[in-house]
Amino acid sequence: MHNSQNRPVIDALQECILACEHCASACLQEEHVKMMARCIQLDRDCADICRLTATLLARGSVHGKHLLRECIEVCEACAAECAQHDHDHCQACAEACRRCAEACRSLAA
Amino acid sequence: MHNSQNRPVIDALQECILACEHCASACLQEEHVKMMARCIQLDRDCADICRLTATLLARGSVHGKHLLRECIEVCEACAAECAQHDHDHCQACAEACRRCAEACRSLAA
Amino acid sequence: MHNSQNRPVIDALQECILACEHCASACLQEEHVKMMARCIQLDRDCADICRLTATLLARGSVHGKHLLRECIEVCEACAAECAQHDHDHCQACAEACRRCAEACRSLAA
Amino acid sequence: MHNSQNRPVIDALQECILACEHCASACLQEEHVKMMARCIQLDRDCADICRLTATLLARGSVHGKHLLRECIEVCEACAAECAQHDHDHCQACAEACRRCAEACRSLAA
Repeated sequence: MHNSQNRPVIDALQECILACEHCASACLQEEHVKMMARCIQLDRDCADICRLTATLLARGSVHGKHLLRECIEVCEACAAECAQHDHDHCQACAEACRRCAEACRSLAA
Repeated sequence: MHNSQNRPVIDALQECILACEHCASACLQEEHVKMMARCIQLDRDCADICRLTATLLARGSVHGKHLLRECIEVCEACAAECAQHDHDHCQACAEACRRCAEACRSLAA
Repeated sequence: MHNSQNRPVIDALQECILACEHCASACLQEEHVKMMARCIQLDRDCADICRLTATLLARGSVHGKHLLRECIEVCEACAAECAQHDHDHCQACAEACRRCAEACRSLAA
Repeated sequence: MHNSQNRPVIDALQECILACEHCASACLQEEHVKMMARCIQLDRDCADICRLTATLLARGSVHGKHLLRECIEVCEACAAECAQHDHDHCQACAEACRRCAEACRSLAA
């Protein structure tokens, strides 16, 4: 059931997806887009991997748990990149990615 | 920005996605799956259409608003079907779909 | 059934998705990323809208046909933007988007 | 680049997605849906996991290769389940899943 054990992770994944989608769009409107290229690329991958993981966990699929490791990896990479940029959307995204990685790590444990 | 005007709709979309994904899986485990076939089919479509709409709204894309009408249609169809079944997951899904349709309707207005 | 009437459209959608995903990544690696910002944004939206349309058509869902109009709109916008850039990936993407819009238009008719 | 080394895998993934989406819908219309419940569940997961893998590979993302192992696992599970049912859509899906697992295995090697 998605309402019990998995719910905190699903919530963290959904916040992370929103932060990444918004960060990518906002980065594309920054003055120095070139500096943000890696950030945008990671935002795209992170949003999509988190989206599938949330879907599979909501579904109660065994494959949801299998994706947690990849989810943690991309969230940590995205958090590390975003943390280097001062923009509000990057800082918010870094924080959402860190929380998501942490939530995934507790479920994976 | 996804945090202001769009946020209530995005939240309603995300609850609807979770309810539909869970409902489809739970329907597949019911004694009388055949009776649930249309419910499962609508759950799949509703989850996927809501997922794209949430993604585009979070992204600040103009296409997010364009999808609202289709989203309302599939949410209403899914709510009407789910409401006919007594299972807790169907009742919860009907409610989430109705709320989502309503939230989409206010944003579309 | 996805193998008969819908198959040419699904094929065009899938080619368009690949071209858009590749174009967005390649744009992010160009020297002048800022000039490509709108292209990247449209590539993201176009890929995602085409992906859902292909999914729903493959599924035989009535909602697949409903998405064709939006699909045509985003494909045409993406084609118009990409056509303005000389990069091979942009020219290839413009062509894939045009073919996809055309295929969607014949199915919608 | 998605046109060279990755292209055969992407093609196999896309055929697998179409076969799974169609198989799930067709299973829901069979006389004995209950027998098809596990098939439908695996079709959903397999389509979604293959869809993300194809997306990431088209994008040239390193995470595409990371998903291959999970993709192989779900394709093999789906192929094994589908192979047990005589319906044309199940046999076609089993074959598409097997080819996809094989293509993923060669890229992963």
